[in-house]
Amino acid sequence: MLIEMGRAARAAFRQIAKAESSLKNEALRALAALLERDSGEILAANSRDLDAARNSGMSDALVDRLTLNEKRIQGLSSDLRKLADLPDPVGERFDATVLSNGLKLCRQRVPLGVLGVIYEARPNVTIDVSGLVIKTGNAVLLRGGKETLHSNAVLAGLAQQALAQSGLPPETVQFIGDPDRKRVLELLGLHEYVDVIVPRGGEGLHRFCRENSRIPVITGGIGICHIFLDASADIDRALPVIHNAKTQRPSVCNALDTVLVHRALAAEALPRIVECLAPAGVSFRADASALPFLARGDSGALPDGIEPAGPDDFDTEWMSLVLGLKVVEGIDAAIEHTNAHSMGHSDSILTEDEKNASRWLKEVDSSAVYVNASTRFTDGGQFGLGAEVAISTQRLHARGPMGLRELTTYKWVAEGNYHIRD
Amino acid sequence: MLIEMGRAARAAFRQIAKAESSLKNEALRALAALLERDSGEILAANSRDLDAARNSGMSDALVDRLTLNEKRIQGLSSDLRKLADLPDPVGERFDATVLSNGLKLCRQRVPLGVLGVIYEARPNVTIDVSGLVIKTGNAVLLRGGKETLHSNAVLAGLAQQALAQSGLPPETVQFIGDPDRKRVLELLGLHEYVDVIVPRGGEGLHRFCRENSRIPVITGGIGICHIFLDASADIDRALPVIHNAKTQRPSVCNALDTVLVHRALAAEALPRIVECLAPAGVSFRADASALPFLARGDSGALPDGIEPAGPDDFDTEWMSLVLGLKVVEGIDAAIEHTNAHSMGHSDSILTEDEKNASRWLKEVDSSAVYVNASTRFTDGGQFGLGAEVAISTQRLHARGPMGLRELTTYKWVAEGNYHIRD
Repeated sequence: MLIEMGRAARAAFRQIAKAESSLKNEALRALAALLERDSGEILAANSRDLDAARNSGMSDALVDRLTLNEKRIQGLSSDLRKLADLPDPVGERFDATVLSNGLKLCRQRVPLGVLGVIYEARPNVTIDVSGLVIKTGNAVLLRGGKETLHSNAVLAGLAQQALAQSGLPPETVQFIGDPDRKRVLELLGLHEYVDVIVPRGGEGLHRFCRENSRIPVITGGIGICHIFLDASADIDRALPVIHNAKTQRPSVCNALDTVLVHRALAAEALPRIVECLAPAGVSFRADASALPFLARGDSGALPDGIEPAGPDDFDTEWMSLVLGLKVVEGIDAAIEHTNAHSMGHSDSILTEDEKNASRWLKEVDSSAVYVNASTRFTDGGQFGLGAEVAISTQRLHARGPMGLRELTTYKWVAEGNYHIRD
Repeated sequence: MLIEMGRAARAAFRQIAKAESSLKNEALRALAALLERDSGEILAANSRDLDAARNSGMSDALVDRLTLNEKRIQGLSSDLRKLADLPDPVGERFDATVLSNGLKLCRQRVPLGVLGVIYEARPNVTIDVSGLVIKTGNAVLLRGGKETLHSNAVLAGLAQQALAQSGLPPETVQFIGDPDRKRVLELLGLHEYVDVIVPRGGEGLHRFCRENSRIPVITGGIGICHIFLDASADIDRALPVIHNAKTQRPSVCNALDTVLVHRALAAEALPRIVECLAPAGVSFRADASALPFLARGDSGALPDGIEPAGPDDFDTEWMSLVLGLKVVEGIDAAIEHTNAHSMGHSDSILTEDEKNASRWLKEVDSSAVYVNASTRFTDGGQFGLGAEVAISTQRLHARGPMGLRELTTYKWVAEGNYHIRD
């Protein structure tokens, strides 16, 4: 069954890959309108998913992710219309040159191909990804979580309607409706038809894809993010950055997990970090190097909310209001700790020292490296990409936020005058 | 054992990734000098490989690939010196912008990581790849064919010497000396240490890598290349292009495999193609559509060197002086045949019709698409990239000739003034 969907996706890709931008944008606007028109049907399907989820004892946080309502549907429509207004990267030519023999050569952006996107209980991803794929002339096989089966079936059906209305092949967007996990394995083996797998979910899903896929996998969306508070940093200005990185949205991948504090600043900075963040509900895991600066003078006891870090704590993506604290001897130790424990997502130095700033930017090997800024900026919208399909933490093809351009590849275009090679 | 090599490669990568260009170029020049100094030792090791190869009954063509001599060693040294003179892509900044909140943002090229290169009986690849990897600040685990074991051990040893002489970590280049095929499987599982697998060899090797790797694989180097002779083409000028594409070097991946001839031109062009290429030793596999134009008038018999195409012939990379011939009704059929049978390498249209040229460039979905030129140009050297590690025919990361820049990735660099996200 999946092989038929793969074949249809490849055929649809051949069509939409060469479609004019105006047609693709028309499909996006049509989808926006269909979401609004059929919001009742969408919400009814979503209710069925929500009922099943609550009956199965799903956590409130997951139920929230699964929930659609009029406002969220409006948001999806509005995002699709904004997407339609963005420039189309397909067709852009770059690196143009004329070789000494007169052959005209350039690279030209073309759609990436057929994507396999595997995600969990977030029905908004169905529309977000469908929109990005239509905009960039790609095709997609969507494999959403079984918790969102009814919502996704309706949403993907609307995407197909919008495509058909605009004269584009509906099979550009296909939804794998069979919840059997075997279908995921089957998808990962469709290398003849699928060009790239994008898992969006936890580490287990990423590992499963990597271990079982015969198709390149773009892994990402998991971050153990660091801020290094250098000796020269302005503590007064640093504290709001640490506060922002940790607390503004603690459940996302670019939220802060560990603060490394230069020893020269530790006595002043560590208590102030605790004082600044504890009222927001943050609790702390302190390395042995940090404990002496945090324990109460007399008793040596730790205040509430601070505990000694366990062996795996600096390799944990907290996704919650927990923050690791460690004292380091300087920039070398800070870079070494970061490269050893970061997942290659987002890491920042707070410093007034240009040399250390420049070493951090050069030597920390992450998708996004920062000087004097919160790690929370790593995001397609924040970076001005207009949209984002995922945040890559692997090295091939794309790193960090993947926007429209990262959903393209290129071909070499050569124009000659009956040129032959000597 | 391989896991130790992987760990060492990752550690070496961290060092060489931040090395100055001058140091890396010094290592390249040192390696060039060492090859010249130790050519005797290299040739002695190569003799041992050649003896074993001849005793095992290896074909002359393969023995030739395996052979080193003074001239070829000189060529390797000279290529290394040229490589040292090329600009270093690492550190280049692009897409620089200042966000509305004042955060300065750009992308910066950084080395790609640790490569696993799996190749066959070509000792020159050991030096070519070592040079490219050193130049771009990457590291590599080299897995050459067992036929070249002695040659490769000496060559990789010299690369390590050159690195050490220049103060760079010798483990930047490591050679897997154990010929057991299990080591290949082990290499394909080292996803914690290796970022990308580059197989250089036949389709079997590529398939093996794709099916067994937990690391992204860049496949390529296999081409079923087409030329479409459109109705408007100038036959006199087209024949030398077809001749060049087929015969200039028939054993390589950008050599021509199939000519598609527009029906309007078939009666004149097909006999002339045969007449032009047969003297170079080319034989032909003609589709049923082409046979009537090639059979002798009276008897309907086919001339020597022409036979009816078998069912798989248009899906065969000939690598030899065989050429497929087929008549098509026009540009639509030509594009359809090409997209169905090409491996996505190099495909060319010969035409005077701008509209058809433009449709070919847009709709043929290959790494390199040509108008009025031989397919033989798809090559890092010809395209002015200075060097080439492989020719990619997959879609992720790089397509077509992969030069220095394609051995890099990028990171996002953001510089702020204690910026926080709203």
